[in-house]
Amino acid sequence: MEYDKILSAIVRENKKKILLLVLDGIGGIPHKITGKTELETAKTPQLDRFAEEGSCGTMTPVLKGITPGSGPGHISLFGYDPVETQIGRGTLECLGIGMDLAKNDIAIRGNFAAIDGNSIVTDRRAGRISTEENKKLVSLISGKIKELSGVKIHLQTVKEHRCAIVLKGEGLNPGVSENDPQKEGLPLKPLEALDKDSEKTAAVLREFEKRVADILKDAGSKAKIILLRGISRLPHIPTFKEKYKLDAVCIASYPMYKGVSKVAGMDIAEAGETVEDEFRTLEEIYNRYNFFFMHIKKTDSYGEDGNFRSKVKIIEDIDSKIWQLRKMDFESIAITGDHSTPAVMKGHSWHPVPLIIKSPNAIPDGVKNFTERECSKGILGNIYSKELMYLLLACALKLDKFGA
Amino acid sequence: MEYDKILSAIVRENKKKILLLVLDGIGGIPHKITGKTELETAKTPQLDRFAEEGSCGTMTPVLKGITPGSGPGHISLFGYDPVETQIGRGTLECLGIGMDLAKNDIAIRGNFAAIDGNSIVTDRRAGRISTEENKKLVSLISGKIKELSGVKIHLQTVKEHRCAIVLKGEGLNPGVSENDPQKEGLPLKPLEALDKDSEKTAAVLREFEKRVADILKDAGSKAKIILLRGISRLPHIPTFKEKYKLDAVCIASYPMYKGVSKVAGMDIAEAGETVEDEFRTLEEIYNRYNFFFMHIKKTDSYGEDGNFRSKVKIIEDIDSKIWQLRKMDFESIAITGDHSTPAVMKGHSWHPVPLIIKSPNAIPDGVKNFTERECSKGILGNIYSKELMYLLLACALKLDKFGA
Repeated sequence: MEYDKILSAIVRENKKKILLLVLDGIGGIPHKITGKTELETAKTPQLDRFAEEGSCGTMTPVLKGITPGSGPGHISLFGYDPVETQIGRGTLECLGIGMDLAKNDIAIRGNFAAIDGNSIVTDRRAGRISTEENKKLVSLISGKIKELSGVKIHLQTVKEHRCAIVLKGEGLNPGVSENDPQKEGLPLKPLEALDKDSEKTAAVLREFEKRVADILKDAGSKAKIILLRGISRLPHIPTFKEKYKLDAVCIASYPMYKGVSKVAGMDIAEAGETVEDEFRTLEEIYNRYNFFFMHIKKTDSYGEDGNFRSKVKIIEDIDSKIWQLRKMDFESIAITGDHSTPAVMKGHSWHPVPLIIKSPNAIPDGVKNFTERECSKGILGNIYSKELMYLLLACALKLDKFGA
Repeated sequence: MEYDKILSAIVRENKKKILLLVLDGIGGIPHKITGKTELETAKTPQLDRFAEEGSCGTMTPVLKGITPGSGPGHISLFGYDPVETQIGRGTLECLGIGMDLAKNDIAIRGNFAAIDGNSIVTDRRAGRISTEENKKLVSLISGKIKELSGVKIHLQTVKEHRCAIVLKGEGLNPGVSENDPQKEGLPLKPLEALDKDSEKTAAVLREFEKRVADILKDAGSKAKIILLRGISRLPHIPTFKEKYKLDAVCIASYPMYKGVSKVAGMDIAEAGETVEDEFRTLEEIYNRYNFFFMHIKKTDSYGEDGNFRSKVKIIEDIDSKIWQLRKMDFESIAITGDHSTPAVMKGHSWHPVPLIIKSPNAIPDGVKNFTERECSKGILGNIYSKELMYLLLACALKLDKFGA
């Protein structure tokens, strides 16, 4: 990113506080009957008041037309380039279920799969075994394989045929090819080191594959093997402290968002489960940090379910609590989303998300409603999510002049 | 920049004239009581008429959230990338006080500083000596050091403890480390060549440092040394003639802006001191050029002082003179700023600046006021300053079709 070339020379510390409030999947598209989005349907007097007081705009999460997953959605909100800084699939899977993942650990997605006597993959999902059966197999394997060549192996159930694996040990690197042939009817692929530094990892994974096959042979399940995919580790990127000189904390209830925040070196607060818990946590730890990433998940979940009405309701519920932010003194507040999840589309989408920046140094622009279409008329225009952090830092007077 | 890859193939000469009128630091943020910016407070019927006739928008000088100094602010207005093309601190200092600086000269910022007998820097500003005392020391040193190893040395007072130094001679390069330890209580750092081509410069500067110390030893001043900083030279970039096939001239009253224009190969007009002088100069030299960069400084100065009322007044004063542009026939006119200098913030800021492009080939967009918030609704949207030149060239029909 262009910013990387100049940031270290201009970023400065001060005590002013920044809040990045992310309403996951907040954006929508109009309901086919009413012609209104979720935000346009919801009654949101508090959010609207923030819109009226702040500068408004919209944000494109990654690139125009690109629908982000949670990884790129948040990496960009944190001011990193989501195309340059990609988080591996295995890493996201492990973060998503809250597995402990340190800087150099290897993270892997696993599929329980069926093979025949000639190592031909006959079903890449082993008949989509139940989560219950998955748990039994994970317990069986975990009991028998704890360590291979001095490398600790952690295996955990995700869902149905999916599991996640973390390797912890010295000298591990993620450059290993997957054993998944991608299509059924093809033989298992060899787990091969793609570079010299990854040879140990490859050897450990080959041994793991073999041991798992031995264990599953007579376990009475369709699953006979684990396909190892997305072999990766946490991206090595500068932390918030290094990059922005910020003492940053994450307030989130879902493991995925805590995980991505850890990638950026944030502390992870004990935030509880509910939106109430999160607001309470924010107030409790307010004195200890100067950057707060607060993540509310439910807006996204109802969008994914296609539950327009519940998404509207949760938006109104959040709105009723948002006055609590006024109890504290933030120099910059952003209220936005990581991406849109239109209930109409039942999934993430590429549509820009609405954005409010409230700060004594932001220009109110006459926008009076926190909706996609009203915010698009705001003075911030359409920015990229990866630019937001720099506006928040600027509004909190944490960036010196560039050049004399 | 992307433009560099295609520009030479499409830029063409014609006689149409372009005016880039820069009102330094023009943008503001709302006054805490009135809720209006300087431009919103001022009565500007002439500027508003231009807004009504032209296309409007806002411009981000460098990157979102980044506050530019005068160097990057203008480099980008001239169509160069301000991150790629950075002007060294020494170069800016020398340009700022109008020192003669040729393409390969070395430019340096100097601090008169105090050291003890062990070359420990005890005061990096020598007690912030007066400008008067600085002038005496400069005169003393200049009398005794005119040339070292065939390299001419030019020393000039800036202000208080600050001076500027230009080296002129063969075989000079700017890759020399600074002798400033950055903190007091530390020893002077060695002036070392960072590359082979800079060894001569390093040797000359070491000799200069030593000779200065000898001279200052018994000069009765707290200043005992000159800290040499920002060792640099003019960036080697294509001129306006080479890049755009334009005969360009700068009409400015302050040395800094003349200097930056020289970097871009512009002629420098004798523009006088006042806004009246500048308008008169524009008319006088109108026939001799096809690109005019006209720079008005006072808007920035009052912003820096936090003098809201005077900034409003100078805006109204400029407005009363701007009808004179109508006496001439420009195919493209841009009226804008290099950055914002909100009086409320008493300094430069990152906020986008308002922009008008008036041309028979620009689309009027219904914006009727030259203000930050009205222009943000204009058809140009929010562009980067480095893109402006290409719009001006296009509106003056100086860019051919790209690709068949």
